Amino acid sequence: MDDPALNRLSSYVPGVRADFEEMLGGIVEVPTVSADPEHAEDIRKGAALAAQYLRASGATSAEVVETSGNPVVLGKFLSDPADPTVTVYNHLDVQPAQEPEWTRDPFSFGARDGRYDGRGCTDDKGPALTALMAARYAREAGIPVNVHFIWEMEEEIGSPHFEEFVQGQGSGVDTDSVVVSDTVWLSRDTPAIPYGLRGLQAARLVLETGRNDAHSGLTGGAARNPVGELCQVIGRCYDARTGEVTIPGFYDRVAPASGEEMESFLSSGFDLGKFVEAHGLYKLRTRDAGEVMDRIWCRPTFEVHGVTGGYLGPGVKTVVPPRAEAKVSMRLVPDQEPEEAMELLTAHVKEINPDVEVHAAGSLRPYLGDFRGPYADAARQAIRFGFDRDPAFIREGGSIGAVVTMRDYLKAPIILMGFSLPDHGYHGPNEHYDWGQASGGIRALSSYFSQVSRIR
Amino acid sequence: MDDPALNRLSSYVPGVRADFEEMLGGIVEVPTVSADPEHAEDIRKGAALAAQYLRASGATSAEVVETSGNPVVLGKFLSDPADPTVTVYNHLDVQPAQEPEWTRDPFSFGARDGRYDGRGCTDDKGPALTALMAARYAREAGIPVNVHFIWEMEEEIGSPHFEEFVQGQGSGVDTDSVVVSDTVWLSRDTPAIPYGLRGLQAARLVLETGRNDAHSGLTGGAARNPVGELCQVIGRCYDARTGEVTIPGFYDRVAPASGEEMESFLSSGFDLGKFVEAHGLYKLRTRDAGEVMDRIWCRPTFEVHGVTGGYLGPGVKTVVPPRAEAKVSMRLVPDQEPEEAMELLTAHVKEINPDVEVHAAGSLRPYLGDFRGPYADAARQAIRFGFDRDPAFIREGGSIGAVVTMRDYLKAPIILMGFSLPDHGYHGPNEHYDWGQASGGIRALSSYFSQVSRIR
Repeated sequence: MDDPALNRLSSYVPGVRADFEEMLGGIVEVPTVSADPEHAEDIRKGAALAAQYLRASGATSAEVVETSGNPVVLGKFLSDPADPTVTVYNHLDVQPAQEPEWTRDPFSFGARDGRYDGRGCTDDKGPALTALMAARYAREAGIPVNVHFIWEMEEEIGSPHFEEFVQGQGSGVDTDSVVVSDTVWLSRDTPAIPYGLRGLQAARLVLETGRNDAHSGLTGGAARNPVGELCQVIGRCYDARTGEVTIPGFYDRVAPASGEEMESFLSSGFDLGKFVEAHGLYKLRTRDAGEVMDRIWCRPTFEVHGVTGGYLGPGVKTVVPPRAEAKVSMRLVPDQEPEEAMELLTAHVKEINPDVEVHAAGSLRPYLGDFRGPYADAARQAIRFGFDRDPAFIREGGSIGAVVTMRDYLKAPIILMGFSLPDHGYHGPNEHYDWGQASGGIRALSSYFSQVSRIR
Repeated sequence: MDDPALNRLSSYVPGVRADFEEMLGGIVEVPTVSADPEHAEDIRKGAALAAQYLRASGATSAEVVETSGNPVVLGKFLSDPADPTVTVYNHLDVQPAQEPEWTRDPFSFGARDGRYDGRGCTDDKGPALTALMAARYAREAGIPVNVHFIWEMEEEIGSPHFEEFVQGQGSGVDTDSVVVSDTVWLSRDTPAIPYGLRGLQAARLVLETGRNDAHSGLTGGAARNPVGELCQVIGRCYDARTGEVTIPGFYDRVAPASGEEMESFLSSGFDLGKFVEAHGLYKLRTRDAGEVMDRIWCRPTFEVHGVTGGYLGPGVKTVVPPRAEAKVSMRLVPDQEPEEAMELLTAHVKEINPDVEVHAAGSLRPYLGDFRGPYADAARQAIRFGFDRDPAFIREGGSIGAVVTMRDYLKAPIILMGFSLPDHGYHGPNEHYDWGQASGGIRALSSYFSQVSRIR
């Protein structure tokens, strides 16, 4: 399919590379860690910088919209009210970066040979700026499309105020198509457009049995041990070897993947060896590729992310700690609901150990969309244009709370068109992004804007 | 009993207070943390300072004896080879001090109104210098007794080279009586002379399932979770609610306390309310005082001291960590053996999860002595002289590896005459000691030296 509106892309893309890198470097060096209250000022700094980027790239308007939590950056490239509108969602907050494996300062930007290093490069600042470069192209090429940007600053903590933002905008965010650019390909060779996301319910289990560290010789045997009791609780919430969750009622509402979906997964190009390598995993719970896809995309999980309390230094210090906290979460799939999962977890924990406090810590509903219709076709075509490859339509195991909110309020088809690669270190150490994905992404989204401009 | 050799104590004790405080301050400010290799230099500095203290206090000889590990300080106040010899054991290494509850720098000495603050004040630097002041008195008063000091620098890590030291000294450490001053009273009003100690087998359980943090959305369900698997292992090693150890064979060699012992415990003055308060415990596994004493003195335990791996910051970060380590230990009682306990633990863990590495991390044999004979009588008399109270003969739940080694090599009766109080924060935050215990201890040990000088 030849699209004359895209003719100037071959000179445009290399031409904006310097701008792209300068902007990415600027925003990556603002540590917008939403999970840590100490970075509240950085969140505001990042939002202001992002609005400046929008204006510098030709946006008709760019504003930092306040909410009861972190602000949302709203940018608009308006063409004509009669033209179709595409809304691009990204987030500009990032994960913490305390992993000891970082080989460089995670908040100092590195650009070398087309590789961009730093926390947030691939999740999700790089893809956000990729989309911005595409919107700038659409404006400069006169493509008759309105493009809205919604850049959230609370995605990594479960989007607690995103619904408030969307509600507050009313018809101001009406749109014909939503593109969410915050997902990961199957491999460098296999683009993916997921149509389903898992939900999430996170929780903190807290147990306090004393005022201070006690000597395990002087008190051990009589003194309660909160780390041991939380380990026991976790051991009764799931079988960590198999992954089977043992919270009563947990699986009741799980809708299994259809046979058609499983067939589509099996032909998606998912490569178990590449998956294991990309995520740095030594051994999985199963070696069956189909079961792995089912487990990571269509099945719910229980997970423990860390247990604090006690002595964590070198060697062994024989204390009975006074307090422990387990950080846990459950990934949820249709038709599970976070509230119900939280209730089941709380009831189960309280039955095992009534002294354990169970605190909810963020929740996201699961999402299941479709991959048919003109917007899905346009997305397929766009990826082919940008990367010369066909995308696989799969589900994805992560959670993006804003997707469910936008489904409920914007009532437009949602396309999950991400540009991150499995080896980019999403949520891990040494996170990076690259110009190959950015330049292909600019081409793909330009094509998408152009195609949507013709859907009337 | 009137002992003219002790007449000058009433002026001697207040007279040495300034020296005692200066020496305690000096040694407390050397952070002799044996568990942390970063403090290796401090260990050597502490040993040199201790030898200097011995010489300044009138020791005939004071040397820093090298071993394959940390050195041992050996000091001798020699009177005449024909006189009886008392060997006083203390240790000058200390626990780490990373507890957040410290209200002051743990390695900056504080002395105010007779309270001495700082890591190591009560365990065991304060008691060591208490004994040194008593030996200085014995020398100055011309009491016909030889006093040897053995100051270890590896007690807190299980005395791995103490046997090497004792063997190396041969007949140079021959003695008639051993006093170990490293135990805790039942309460401020109830001195205790324990005749039994629990042993210890510590271990690190390590599981590595990946190279780096993985995203729990992208991999969760298929990826193994090492924190979860270690929680499961711990949950199968013991029931943390009741304390019951579920490692097969664990209790096979446990010799229960005799009825006579239990009666002695019940009349010892052990106060459950004070015990709970002193150790800062909110709730015990039982409220029965007799059962508490049995549990902490005569029964073995399994304990988990901390679980590293994963995200430990504020909130919840949804990563699957690549590696986790559980720090565990077992307190052992007669006739359990550390080697056998380690074998039972390893076999059990490997059966639950063969991928978990089990590393031994220090072991100590349990000890059971007697409280009859002239040296025990002298100790009873000494406590009465020093503190105007009768001591209770009990067991104690902690472990002092050197006691077992000295029993095997020195073949002399061992008296455990400690001066620490339960509220002194042994192994906990805000550790302290006080002049009341130090001054009483100087009197008590001076009396002990004098009595032993007459046992011919």
